[in-house]
Amino acid sequence: MPPRFIAALLVVGLASCSPRTPPGAPAPDRITQVSVINALMIGRYDGVATIGALLRDGDFGLGTLDHLDGELIILDGRAYQVRGDGVVADVGPEATTPFAVVTPFVEDGAFACPQVASLTELEARLDEALPQANAFVAVRIDGRLDSATLRSVHRQEPPYRPLAEVAESQSVWNRRDVSGTLLGIRGPAWVRGLTVPGYHWHFLSADRKVGGHVLDCRPIEGRVRYDLVHDWDIRLPQSGDFDRADLTPDLSRELKRVESSRGPAPGADAPPPGPDRP
Amino acid sequence: MPPRFIAALLVVGLASCSPRTPPGAPAPDRITQVSVINALMIGRYDGVATIGALLRDGDFGLGTLDHLDGELIILDGRAYQVRGDGVVADVGPEATTPFAVVTPFVEDGAFACPQVASLTELEARLDEALPQANAFVAVRIDGRLDSATLRSVHRQEPPYRPLAEVAESQSVWNRRDVSGTLLGIRGPAWVRGLTVPGYHWHFLSADRKVGGHVLDCRPIEGRVRYDLVHDWDIRLPQSGDFDRADLTPDLSRELKRVESSRGPAPGADAPPPGPDRP
Repeated sequence: MPPRFIAALLVVGLASCSPRTPPGAPAPDRITQVSVINALMIGRYDGVATIGALLRDGDFGLGTLDHLDGELIILDGRAYQVRGDGVVADVGPEATTPFAVVTPFVEDGAFACPQVASLTELEARLDEALPQANAFVAVRIDGRLDSATLRSVHRQEPPYRPLAEVAESQSVWNRRDVSGTLLGIRGPAWVRGLTVPGYHWHFLSADRKVGGHVLDCRPIEGRVRYDLVHDWDIRLPQSGDFDRADLTPDLSRELKRVESSRGPAPGADAPPPGPDRP
Repeated sequence: MPPRFIAALLVVGLASCSPRTPPGAPAPDRITQVSVINALMIGRYDGVATIGALLRDGDFGLGTLDHLDGELIILDGRAYQVRGDGVVADVGPEATTPFAVVTPFVEDGAFACPQVASLTELEARLDEALPQANAFVAVRIDGRLDSATLRSVHRQEPPYRPLAEVAESQSVWNRRDVSGTLLGIRGPAWVRGLTVPGYHWHFLSADRKVGGHVLDCRPIEGRVRYDLVHDWDIRLPQSGDFDRADLTPDLSRELKRVESSRGPAPGADAPPPGPDRP
């Protein structure tokens, strides 16, 4: 069992929710989001904010890139792209994203990573340790995974198809005994249509050669560090294309499928599809 | 017809959605929200942010006060309370709010207020002039109303009842030929549970003696000024009370009733219930 921080973490009584920011620094308790998840769900894959701008709002985050060109990972202030072929590449500040979530990771607590058999079990254990259900939580787990099932998506060209359709052709691969960082953002349950409710996980290996969106994993050791965030800032694209989009449909089932489905024929223990397979 | 700003207002093509803020100044294109509307709907009426903090994030806004003690109006950087008895009072910086929305009003355009017979018709005309359906819009209309149906709510004591129930006992009053400012915030349709979708209107008279949440009105002249906002910042309360709340139910029908219902026995042309009636 991870240590219980419940009593210590419940900030009881009246608390101001208007933190002030020193000039030039990102707000330490703010999670900044580019666009809304439903825009991505319906195929709005054109980048609307630069990675350079994103890095000014945080050093830790997740997302995707212009044209849905792979998984975006922001770790320790550096941006990485996990391409559809599994290759991990650096991302320049001029690259753009259609959807991303970023925060300055300011550790609020830490505990040993439980040794669990699946991502589902890991999330249940984290929920026990982090009962602040209506706050956002950024979680990083630096450690070793006995196995990881990862995926990425391939760059798309207009006219864009909906994400649930594109995700059918995602690349999925398994890795055994890999060290690195699990990056998770947990959104409250009520964010429907705007961001991902529950956990959203990406992984980047210690050698920066392996990464992707995490479909499953078995952590065997590591350190869980978390950052509770109470200020959610959504940057809406300023374009006619965004303004004409109908973002109201309930696509939560489709989103769950995109987030957690291994898609067709995941191929157990398949090597990564990219050229940098070991 | 108001002039059509459609072509001019559609910012086409790629646009950064990450505005930077000069040190100390509020972000000009940001609407800052305290808590989420569903928390208010289920009776979370205790203040969680000070008015002083709110005024640092904007000079224009709407909301309510600690203990649901009336309607909150922020106009030209000053905070006003319209009490349940109709009295308009100044609000000090140490007062708190459980729910409010505020923005620095930076005019993006203006046009003559259409002369219409109802609030519904006014909103339809504004929608024609402001087709940016997925942005937030702050609207102020300084002018003269042939009539206004206003309401306010009475201070509540714990244990709090849900807002839809409390609103049944709201005060409603009509005013004829009154000059002042209509303050509106229009939220996109997809904000369900988080803020008010569509228009939310408060009114404050030029002499600061009459105000309230607007249920209906007939504007006869005035100037519409609007501010398109693309950055939505939600400040989540940091309390165990908030964290234990189930904010997921769909309360949109109840919210619509709270926003627009005249409640029981509105009494046409009834005088304001407060001691400062003319």
